[in-house]
Amino acid sequence: MVAPDEFLEAPSDTREEILAATYRALCEHGYASLTVQRIADEFPKSKSLLYHHYEGKDDLLLDFLSFMLDRFEETVPDADADEPAEALASLVNRVLAVPLPEDRREFSEAMVELRAQAAHDPRFRDHFTNSDALFRARIASIVRRGVETGAFREVDPEAMATLLVATLTGTMTQRVTGEEDVAPAVREELSRFVREYLRA
Amino acid sequence: MVAPDEFLEAPSDTREEILAATYRALCEHGYASLTVQRIADEFPKSKSLLYHHYEGKDDLLLDFLSFMLDRFEETVPDADADEPAEALASLVNRVLAVPLPEDRREFSEAMVELRAQAAHDPRFRDHFTNSDALFRARIASIVRRGVETGAFREVDPEAMATLLVATLTGTMTQRVTGEEDVAPAVREELSRFVREYLRA
Repeated sequence: MVAPDEFLEAPSDTREEILAATYRALCEHGYASLTVQRIADEFPKSKSLLYHHYEGKDDLLLDFLSFMLDRFEETVPDADADEPAEALASLVNRVLAVPLPEDRREFSEAMVELRAQAAHDPRFRDHFTNSDALFRARIASIVRRGVETGAFREVDPEAMATLLVATLTGTMTQRVTGEEDVAPAVREELSRFVREYLRA
Repeated sequence: MVAPDEFLEAPSDTREEILAATYRALCEHGYASLTVQRIADEFPKSKSLLYHHYEGKDDLLLDFLSFMLDRFEETVPDADADEPAEALASLVNRVLAVPLPEDRREFSEAMVELRAQAAHDPRFRDHFTNSDALFRARIASIVRRGVETGAFREVDPEAMATLLVATLTGTMTQRVTGEEDVAPAVREELSRFVREYLRA
């Protein structure tokens, strides 16, 4: 998942103001230490507005995740114009930014914590199921185009996308919960994989 | 990570009794709802023994993780005798059991939650860094043998192992926080990958 940008600087309505405050509080405190009060501390308007819009912390976070997913859909280009191997590399490099800027690191840490909620909360699980499916569809569409144009070998685009999403999810998780260096190493090995295997 | 077996049935000392109780409580309640009291409820002896051995919940869980990692080392064979592609498939199939038995699912869910602690707790992060490194070394050793014996193409064993560990970590995470079906799909695609790319 990719960090946001302009909605943080210039939120367009109250919801975006609340979600920008949520983003900042989540990055600063992480999920476990997050409270509605800490979100309110980042929110320039009255705290009562938060309770008017949301029932509580998880309700707010679920809307935040949904908003971020919509933004991801809007801001990650379909890259239909690019050569498929380049479109794939560009997506991988965007998801696994190297080096990882401090705000992206904090956001990635929070995403790992939010994802862990999905182990026991069906609402979070629904979100990450949708999010994985969307990410997979984006990658499958690039792979399919590669296969159709003869740029890639005859792989199953859905199966290849499932493998790649698992790899990227694992790398995003490991880089903020284990060795950070896993990200550049995976990027390099994925690029070799595309060059030596996927390309026809 | 692989679920334990005999230490749960026949713990050999007080530490193993405590860790078996921890395993059961963790599977039943998950990390977030886990308390020392809930571990004590699964422990046949006096609760004071728990406090005698451990300072608190996280101290206990870190010892639990370390114990499970040692067991993983002991129980996952080096598979030096097996043909490298078979050894790799056997490791993948063990890590990504399909179908996922209920006790393994609960354990996997708990591991995702514990891993998320590593985003903000250096002690958990140290554990998962070690755990990833050990897992990578196991896979690299199989790949190296494949390259040396001419069974595999001339890949960099460490880099290939890093890619595979990321893929397996992502799949284990996704299957309990998103779509469960990702596991059989990744297994199949990985086996195609070994057949069509890794094998010389």
